[in-house]
Amino acid sequence: MAFEFPIRIYWEDTDAGGIVFYANYLKFFERARTEWLRSLGIGQQQLREQTGGMFVVTHSQVRYLRPARLDDELIVTAQLQEAGRASLTILQRALLKPEQPMTDNASALLLSEGTIRIGWVDAATLRPARIPSTLLEQLSTNT
Amino acid sequence: MAFEFPIRIYWEDTDAGGIVFYANYLKFFERARTEWLRSLGIGQQQLREQTGGMFVVTHSQVRYLRPARLDDELIVTAQLQEAGRASLTILQRALLKPEQPMTDNASALLLSEGTIRIGWVDAATLRPARIPSTLLEQLSTNT
Amino acid sequence: MAFEFPIRIYWEDTDAGGIVFYANYLKFFERARTEWLRSLGIGQQQLREQTGGMFVVTHSQVRYLRPARLDDELIVTAQLQEAGRASLTILQRALLKPEQPMTDNASALLLSEGTIRIGWVDAATLRPARIPSTLLEQLSTNT
Amino acid sequence: MAFEFPIRIYWEDTDAGGIVFYANYLKFFERARTEWLRSLGIGQQQLREQTGGMFVVTHSQVRYLRPARLDDELIVTAQLQEAGRASLTILQRALLKPEQPMTDNASALLLSEGTIRIGWVDAATLRPARIPSTLLEQLSTNT
Repeated sequence: MAFEFPIRIYWEDTDAGGIVFYANYLKFFERARTEWLRSLGIGQQQLREQTGGMFVVTHSQVRYLRPARLDDELIVTAQLQEAGRASLTILQRALLKPEQPMTDNASALLLSEGTIRIGWVDAATLRPARIPSTLLEQLSTNT
Repeated sequence: MAFEFPIRIYWEDTDAGGIVFYANYLKFFERARTEWLRSLGIGQQQLREQTGGMFVVTHSQVRYLRPARLDDELIVTAQLQEAGRASLTILQRALLKPEQPMTDNASALLLSEGTIRIGWVDAATLRPARIPSTLLEQLSTNT
Repeated sequence: MAFEFPIRIYWEDTDAGGIVFYANYLKFFERARTEWLRSLGIGQQQLREQTGGMFVVTHSQVRYLRPARLDDELIVTAQLQEAGRASLTILQRALLKPEQPMTDNASALLLSEGTIRIGWVDAATLRPARIPSTLLEQLSTNT
Repeated sequence: MAFEFPIRIYWEDTDAGGIVFYANYLKFFERARTEWLRSLGIGQQQLREQTGGMFVVTHSQVRYLRPARLDDELIVTAQLQEAGRASLTILQRALLKPEQPMTDNASALLLSEGTIRIGWVDAATLRPARIPSTLLEQLSTNT
């Protein structure tokens, strides 16, 4: 089951093409990842103070299928695809929330889809490091 | 030969991790693509007024190897990798410009690297369309 | 009574100083204005399609009192201060939501405060125009 | 004499209204302030490492007179208006660079204009502090 997070499209997200600028989906994906981690009891600011480490993105890959527009409401998902000792791979989707509540037949429209790999680093040196074991346990218990 | 465009890192580009936020490389890549097209005599605003079409990104893929920081000066490149009737694939790199002028032995450090696929669409309907032939000719003559 | 809208601080909002970048408060204020208008039944995308007009900001003024940080949850407010035929002035505040539910004695900490003046323009020509009377009526009935 | 810095408008700067989003002028002003300081020999990253302090914005005020659009080239200025012991006030303008080289009669069109007050703080505690005297000397010698 994927974690779901609602995101509304504002003026700041759009460009002169009338649609959401392609870089902004990476912002939306980051917000959803942060809320997914928070839902598992993992606070990034707190984690950094306790462990001196933080996540950084090492790879992103996104397919843009349909554009989002001003005032649209999206559902952005995050789902753990792979967990290693030093990195996690997360599958993420942005779906258009239907204006009417969904019936059984209806389904949210897929706008974009990607995978994001994040690695754990020492925040001071930015050198790769092992993900704290307590964090991995929280992930494996909850997903 | 890749087109090269210099980009300086400002406060707006960085995040609380002390490094450039990962979504912002897609902004840098877009600036370099725009300047590369402009260097070939292709103005996107003008093109839209003349043809009613515009480019949209359909796929992005980025590897983040080393972080950029405040005040860094980058060289961002754009190089046509593949040109089809309805889409272009562009190879893009962000390199750290050395503080000293480069000698023969020195080389700029690769920070991130990606491929971006852009498709041509009708700006009103956003439906895929063929890239105007004059545009393809300008690309094939110059690259 | 001011309209209140919750906003969470993500990585994208912060800079290398460890705090929210000053331009981003204008994004937060815009989101809160949009949600305030929506709460009055005013949809900007719909309004543009119906009337051919849109709001543009003509003046902004912000005092930054205390910084917001990653993971902070803000309350951002919007309150109509003045309504003319062609422009509205809106008082906006960003407050830090206390981590504990507020008791009578506690109060949310004011982080920044500003006034934003928005004018109505023809979306095609960007020339100033009178705010549609139905829109002014919705504002005066509800505020 | 005001310091002048050229800024090109890219897709990322525009919104669905077809014009530059109002918050982005604060980004442009910040870039011009940084380049103005750099032109005086003042590097912010270096200064922070040496003194442990940094500038934060305490007040911004902007009038938006005419919109900028995709592909426009702006001249953004920075000019010291007032220097105190703990803060500086800087007058900033965004002008549209004429497409033709300017003749004596022509003049660049003013798009927006503002004043930005920046204060010096200890980077760790964010408490206000006196601007380093060497920095004030560099400012008074050069402006």
